[in-house]
Amino acid sequence: MGKEYAIGIDLGGTFIKGGVIDLKGKVLVSTSIETRADGGPSHVLGRMAELSREVTRAGRIAWDQVKCVGVGTPGPLSRAKGIVYTAPNLPGWENVPVVRTLKRKLQKPVFLENDANAAGYAENWVGAGRGASSMILLTLGTGIGGGVVLDGDVWHGRDDAAGELGHMSINFDGPRCNCGSYGCIEAYASAPATVRRALDGIEQGKRTSLKKLLEKNGEITAKDIYVAAVGGDKFALQTIQATGKLLGIAVSNFVNIFNPELVVLFGGLAGAGDTLFDPVRDEVRKRALKPAADTVKVVPAKLGGNAGIIGAAGCALRALEISAS
Amino acid sequence: MGKEYAIGIDLGGTFIKGGVIDLKGKVLVSTSIETRADGGPSHVLGRMAELSREVTRAGRIAWDQVKCVGVGTPGPLSRAKGIVYTAPNLPGWENVPVVRTLKRKLQKPVFLENDANAAGYAENWVGAGRGASSMILLTLGTGIGGGVVLDGDVWHGRDDAAGELGHMSINFDGPRCNCGSYGCIEAYASAPATVRRALDGIEQGKRTSLKKLLEKNGEITAKDIYVAAVGGDKFALQTIQATGKLLGIAVSNFVNIFNPELVVLFGGLAGAGDTLFDPVRDEVRKRALKPAADTVKVVPAKLGGNAGIIGAAGCALRALEISAS
Repeated sequence: MGKEYAIGIDLGGTFIKGGVIDLKGKVLVSTSIETRADGGPSHVLGRMAELSREVTRAGRIAWDQVKCVGVGTPGPLSRAKGIVYTAPNLPGWENVPVVRTLKRKLQKPVFLENDANAAGYAENWVGAGRGASSMILLTLGTGIGGGVVLDGDVWHGRDDAAGELGHMSINFDGPRCNCGSYGCIEAYASAPATVRRALDGIEQGKRTSLKKLLEKNGEITAKDIYVAAVGGDKFALQTIQATGKLLGIAVSNFVNIFNPELVVLFGGLAGAGDTLFDPVRDEVRKRALKPAADTVKVVPAKLGGNAGIIGAAGCALRALEISAS
Repeated sequence: MGKEYAIGIDLGGTFIKGGVIDLKGKVLVSTSIETRADGGPSHVLGRMAELSREVTRAGRIAWDQVKCVGVGTPGPLSRAKGIVYTAPNLPGWENVPVVRTLKRKLQKPVFLENDANAAGYAENWVGAGRGASSMILLTLGTGIGGGVVLDGDVWHGRDDAAGELGHMSINFDGPRCNCGSYGCIEAYASAPATVRRALDGIEQGKRTSLKKLLEKNGEITAKDIYVAAVGGDKFALQTIQATGKLLGIAVSNFVNIFNPELVVLFGGLAGAGDTLFDPVRDEVRKRALKPAADTVKVVPAKLGGNAGIIGAAGCALRALEISAS
């Protein structure tokens, strides 16, 4: 039968990424296809099944060598029921029986996982958190997602709804968040929140190279801001530092709650490097309790865009192991 | 040899409580002695050893029937090293080798546990959270402590420093907390914070029965406030509701982070009943994400003053089991 593998699928609103991952978390092959979400859930599920076959062929392994398929999706889901309740940016996705459908199409064990949890599991398995006994992952993007990995397993909670770390309020009177609450860290330190702070500054007449960029492109991105910051633009630097400080307040809370070995920052803004990480770490030193504040490491993620498929595959292998034991 | 038991010791600044607990978490006998903390650590450790022998005699069981001794203490400690680093209200307690000393005196396996963790374990074992797969406990008193019990075990973190739930900031620009940070839930919703809010109102001329009580006693307590609230005093009611709302903001964060089955409120203020619990639950419904917000139960603790000894004994039995496996 040869070496064994798992397939990892990372479902996004624009692309579906798929890959073949070996039992040590190494990516044998990976590829992306368009989601074509407009086609609706059953069309997308068909594409996910095709992609699973395709990466297996591309990896030149036999279908028999595939132990299981892991699927990472955004939004609330039930692992036990194998259902995605809703998925942001995927029209028509309501109570979609992902596991049942893919099991039928692929004739393999299929497991669901929240995408931020999958990224967290992947970073703990073979990434920045390899070997860490406890790890908190924050995904910094349009929103802020979270993954809590304790003793090597994702903490899922009662309803697979744990790890919504972006929706911890750090100011109960703060700005309204997309979730309906106030002052969530997502409302303060997501990419859009960072861009908004920069735009406010530009409007107020701050001197910054971002103004020209805004005039030229009609918009600026979080990446524009940290690239300008690293390039010496003072206002851009202050903007990233402000985001770092706000993230640091949130991380301090997680340190007091979990006393984790590691906090991993994942996604776009984490690319800002020490410009972002220094104020995060400063805030943890100032705010969190000893000894946890002294021992925690705050580091960038390592696996980049592959974290989703590695984690989906890894969580599926782990679930298979648990269900067999 | 007969039935087996564990001894639970709950070390406080004023009293040491001790008890004999059976393997099902039932208290056979319990008693309290003065701590006499002024005598220093070795004197207090001697008293803890005496108390262990005393409750065993009082329970009419043989020393052979005692499997282990669990000690709950406030403040930072290392379970692995068996050392209490510091203990608030216990003068001279710095790096005290509690486990080594008591092992020598008692010739039994001895285990350390943080007192709020012990209370959390106890409530999950035989109290309000019996059978819950996940439970967050908040101890409401002079400070706010926490215990996180996941899949039946206390989550300790890397350095036994996890569960400092009172030091989650819910307003990064909020009032200075004893821990040095700002806007911690302890600074908003502890008993002293609640009393302070009442005193501010009285000073501002609010009509309340608490004013007379203050003049008579020279002070008011958190209990005075909720007794007045339950008795129909509007201002007292608003004061308790304000504390409940603030606690509810914190609980909403814990719901988003852990998606726990249960949140248990323990200690003085929890005695306020629905006057406190209703605003807590309201805030969770308003702020936390579904489905976690819908499924979580927020309830008062059940074990009262015995939680400390039951939990210390229970954690010791659990640690013995883990070390044997």
